[in-house]
Amino acid sequence: MESSCVPPGFRFHPTDEELVGYYLKKKVGSERIDLDVIRDVDLYRIEPWDLQDRCRIRYEQQNDWYFFSHKDKKYPTGTRTNRATLAGFWKATGRDKAVHDKLRLIGMRKTLVFYKGRAPHGQKTDWIIHEYRLQTHPNAPPQARAQD
Amino acid sequence: MESSCVPPGFRFHPTDEELVGYYLKKKVGSERIDLDVIRDVDLYRIEPWDLQDRCRIRYEQQNDWYFFSHKDKKYPTGTRTNRATLAGFWKATGRDKAVHDKLRLIGMRKTLVFYKGRAPHGQKTDWIIHEYRLQTHPNAPPQARAQD
Repeated sequence: MESSCVPPGFRFHPTDEELVGYYLKKKVGSERIDLDVIRDVDLYRIEPWDLQDRCRIRYEQQNDWYFFSHKDKKYPTGTRTNRATLAGFWKATGRDKAVHDKLRLIGMRKTLVFYKGRAPHGQKTDWIIHEYRLQTHPNAPPQARAQD
Repeated sequence: MESSCVPPGFRFHPTDEELVGYYLKKKVGSERIDLDVIRDVDLYRIEPWDLQDRCRIRYEQQNDWYFFSHKDKKYPTGTRTNRATLAGFWKATGRDKAVHDKLRLIGMRKTLVFYKGRAPHGQKTDWIIHEYRLQTHPNAPPQARAQD
């Protein structure tokens, strides 16, 4: 990340609303972001433990990593999403959470857990992703994911 | 605070090292700070509960407020510091904590609690200040304080 612009003492701690309403919206629309702290990655070609280096923000001590990835289809004609990497797979957990800008619904947040191995087996890990999608474009392919 | 420069999602969560080594150093030296998020106040003329409005940073939900205040002497010739406001007074608690830039000592942090009323009496409150001073200028009059 360019260190331009952000003064000492500021940390990237975005709200869900900022992630969806500002960053994801611009990413999906291919709009320019002045200080692009959200890395583009291919989530199906990177393991969770390699995301830290890829998504480092200046000298921050991070526990969260932010990135943008396009959704991959399991089968070209289907709607099932392929969430596997080389070492494991991402599996949804819990309920999706609505993201609002004041009262307006602008997006949804899904939580996924990483399992090592191959579905339906695999060994659960502590890696969690919050996957945000725009609600206004429910069928748009691009998606952003934030690693917690 | 000018909203220039800081992109969405960034919050002011400075480390002690950043407060002392960057902000306090510049304040004491009357150097220009690009994005001056540290308000100048006269701590002896403002009550703790009035600091929130005075030290607001954009639209952040803050639990800490940051400001810079010159030290006031109780007696013109003495070294005792007058820490009283109209409604009460600030009283030191615990030990001062060293602030390092890597291995180099650059400052000290004192913790003070606000009491309503007049010393030596007064009613303790939940208001706490972390008062930072430069270690390189132990006799310099200016001081910065950060409200927690």
